[in-house]
Amino acid sequence: MIRHLLSGADLDAATATRILDTAAEMATVAGREVKKLPALRGRTVVNLFYEDSTRTRISFEAAAKRLSADVINFSAKGSSVAKGESLKDTALTLQAMGADAVVVRHPASGAANRLAEWVDGSVVNAGDGTHEHPTQALLDAYTMRSRLGRLAGLSVAVVGDVLHSRVARSNVLLLSTLGAKVTLVGPPTLIPVDWATRAATANTAGQAPDISVCYDLDAVLPTSDVVMMLRVQRERMSDSYFPSAREYARRYGLDGQRMRRLPEHAIVMHPGPMNRGMEITPEVADSARSTIVEQVTNGVSVRMAVLYLLLGGNNA
Amino acid sequence: MIRHLLSGADLDAATATRILDTAAEMATVAGREVKKLPALRGRTVVNLFYEDSTRTRISFEAAAKRLSADVINFSAKGSSVAKGESLKDTALTLQAMGADAVVVRHPASGAANRLAEWVDGSVVNAGDGTHEHPTQALLDAYTMRSRLGRLAGLSVAVVGDVLHSRVARSNVLLLSTLGAKVTLVGPPTLIPVDWATRAATANTAGQAPDISVCYDLDAVLPTSDVVMMLRVQRERMSDSYFPSAREYARRYGLDGQRMRRLPEHAIVMHPGPMNRGMEITPEVADSARSTIVEQVTNGVSVRMAVLYLLLGGNNA
Amino acid sequence: MIRHLLSGADLDAATATRILDTAAEMATVAGREVKKLPALRGRTVVNLFYEDSTRTRISFEAAAKRLSADVINFSAKGSSVAKGESLKDTALTLQAMGADAVVVRHPASGAANRLAEWVDGSVVNAGDGTHEHPTQALLDAYTMRSRLGRLAGLSVAVVGDVLHSRVARSNVLLLSTLGAKVTLVGPPTLIPVDWATRAATANTAGQAPDISVCYDLDAVLPTSDVVMMLRVQRERMSDSYFPSAREYARRYGLDGQRMRRLPEHAIVMHPGPMNRGMEITPEVADSARSTIVEQVTNGVSVRMAVLYLLLGGNNA
Repeated sequence: MIRHLLSGADLDAATATRILDTAAEMATVAGREVKKLPALRGRTVVNLFYEDSTRTRISFEAAAKRLSADVINFSAKGSSVAKGESLKDTALTLQAMGADAVVVRHPASGAANRLAEWVDGSVVNAGDGTHEHPTQALLDAYTMRSRLGRLAGLSVAVVGDVLHSRVARSNVLLLSTLGAKVTLVGPPTLIPVDWATRAATANTAGQAPDISVCYDLDAVLPTSDVVMMLRVQRERMSDSYFPSAREYARRYGLDGQRMRRLPEHAIVMHPGPMNRGMEITPEVADSARSTIVEQVTNGVSVRMAVLYLLLGGNNA
Repeated sequence: MIRHLLSGADLDAATATRILDTAAEMATVAGREVKKLPALRGRTVVNLFYEDSTRTRISFEAAAKRLSADVINFSAKGSSVAKGESLKDTALTLQAMGADAVVVRHPASGAANRLAEWVDGSVVNAGDGTHEHPTQALLDAYTMRSRLGRLAGLSVAVVGDVLHSRVARSNVLLLSTLGAKVTLVGPPTLIPVDWATRAATANTAGQAPDISVCYDLDAVLPTSDVVMMLRVQRERMSDSYFPSAREYARRYGLDGQRMRRLPEHAIVMHPGPMNRGMEITPEVADSARSTIVEQVTNGVSVRMAVLYLLLGGNNA
Repeated sequence: MIRHLLSGADLDAATATRILDTAAEMATVAGREVKKLPALRGRTVVNLFYEDSTRTRISFEAAAKRLSADVINFSAKGSSVAKGESLKDTALTLQAMGADAVVVRHPASGAANRLAEWVDGSVVNAGDGTHEHPTQALLDAYTMRSRLGRLAGLSVAVVGDVLHSRVARSNVLLLSTLGAKVTLVGPPTLIPVDWATRAATANTAGQAPDISVCYDLDAVLPTSDVVMMLRVQRERMSDSYFPSAREYARRYGLDGQRMRRLPEHAIVMHPGPMNRGMEITPEVADSARSTIVEQVTNGVSVRMAVLYLLLGGNNA
């Protein structure tokens, strides 16, 4: 088993599958009389959050507590960090206090990787800048497998501001490993140039690309098994490369009419929280195709599995 | 047993009495060597607070932990709510994460009721706008019963800004159910019109009113078994309908001289935190009649009972 | 055993030694398979923090949880305190809720002592203004004893803004009790007048002083077993009695060159968080002499011991 989970690329197919299988076992616990497992009793999990993300913090907190770990929440706002302490000194402090795992959310891309260089315990990247958010990719994969029965061969459209999305990046890496075909959909200014080039090159060379790029959502829908809508970061919408809100919603928002272009079995995903009316309409969000609430539930199971396996609950 | 506790009106006499009896059993636990009960082990209680109220949050947190529940605190300030997530989506998220109970404090009247429509688990209203705060009413009733031996027939004066007080509203509803006679006392601008009308109508019709209204505190004291002083919200005092601070304290504040007009056995209550020198003087607050500290202690026992019974600890 | 821990002066040599010995036993727990002790199961420890200090709060939280206590964090910012509740009413409220121990951090010197007058449970001073921080002194003593084998007779230089340092004050009191010789080093404006006078008087009288004062760091280093660098409070540096930053670092900062004037066996301590480049250079902070990370680890063990003994875990 790996020691840290920093990137979707950390996981080979066997390891990723093992996490998903373990998560499935964890999920069955929730249905029992006693929901709590003693696996991580006496272990300490620190949630080190340099950005507010109540949703992600609570998901990890619930996961760790169901495994009987002690959880310490460390919101870096207004903390000694404000007194000028470096990330490294904070890391060494947490380690010295006996943190077995540090779950870190940080505005800077690469912060989780740096943290992992300094601590002996396990580091789980809970989102670093525009870089990665690998447990989100795992819970998305879990949800697809759970709803559609498989991952290999699935056509997954990832729609929106792919350029700034750590969710998109981690999903592309993990889904490629697991054999799904990813199509990135969004305005040209919001698709990473290297991925667009890579997709184009592969096409030219006649190879089967693991990712492709398309700027037309309507063209992609009829052949998609999964449509993953990305959250629009409202704070980015004033940037010059961003279309107007109306234009964005018109071209890349998913409404009921567009949803009906999907195959019968296709599902609609969103990492939450949603901007209802912007990237997704309430009709779609609340439809039977939507897996948005399931994703949240699966997030707890997947994070239980990650903490369990990283902390050696299975002598992994 | 009921599934949610949203209002003092949710409780019939039998259910309210059952909660008070259970709270009395919970209170005995505090005296033992091991203070912790395993009743809610594996259950998750989320404190969802859209307003700061450390006192109430800690009381629920202590209650849940003494029953061995896992507690997750969710302060909605600076959270995804600030990213525009609706109360409904937050509710669905918490439920999807496996919250067995959500304890909610919200500035909007009715928020707890709306939450209860969306979740499968139990919702406990820990204060919604100027609407209700039912566990406060239960701990007040518990305190009266504990000090005076009964609730039926007690004369209870509720004094101050009744109009904006969720504490007053929940108390009126619960105390009426339990057979106490409530008199609302305060400036005419701070007594709800409907209650004033209802009291007047009942008087006119010659029926025994469950509530009456009086604008003269001194007239009410000699026949009161309980005087419940409401907290003055300082932020309201600049409003035009509010008397000046000096006028308010002079007419509706409880000082030592007024306290001595009470019957020998009468008690003085306050939900806290107090504005010493405004609605209550230190002499009164620290006197033997004052139950203010007991109310806090009883609050933990009552909240243990509520969580225990709502979550089916007794196959309720 | 004492009931509260408010000051380094609360501890006689026997009690201090007992805490250090107990901490050593606690430290061995961390190496075992199950790190958690049931000693304080069912007890409630409240962290009442009127100042942000994530580092100290987490250390106490980790310590209490490893003893199986329930921990409730109470950040007084934006709480009912902001609604004007007095420290006394907050204290009575926490006690009424069943807090067995209150760990308090407060900006006002003497706040912990006042709190102790009002509650039946135990109070641990986690830093009050410029007054005291006794668990820091204990963890420092633990670290010295662990590294150098003894405390009696050690020469300890405490360097920096001694005047405003609660860490310095608690260390001076505890180290004197335990037989170490303390030399206060810093600019004359930042050494407390009473201590400077006391040291001078003792010298004049020909007695062995328990503390001495020196304004020249270089002169002290060759005979020091321990150099304890104090944290510079950046917010004080604009005060008129404070040297310029450059001047301070030049005269009282510890760099590699100065460090090499120390005896072979000497250690360098810092309570953290460090201002690297101000009172200490990275070369020193990351050297083998530095005990900074050990101090953090020892802090958890010492706080476990303090909570264990104060709460009677040993029928103390």
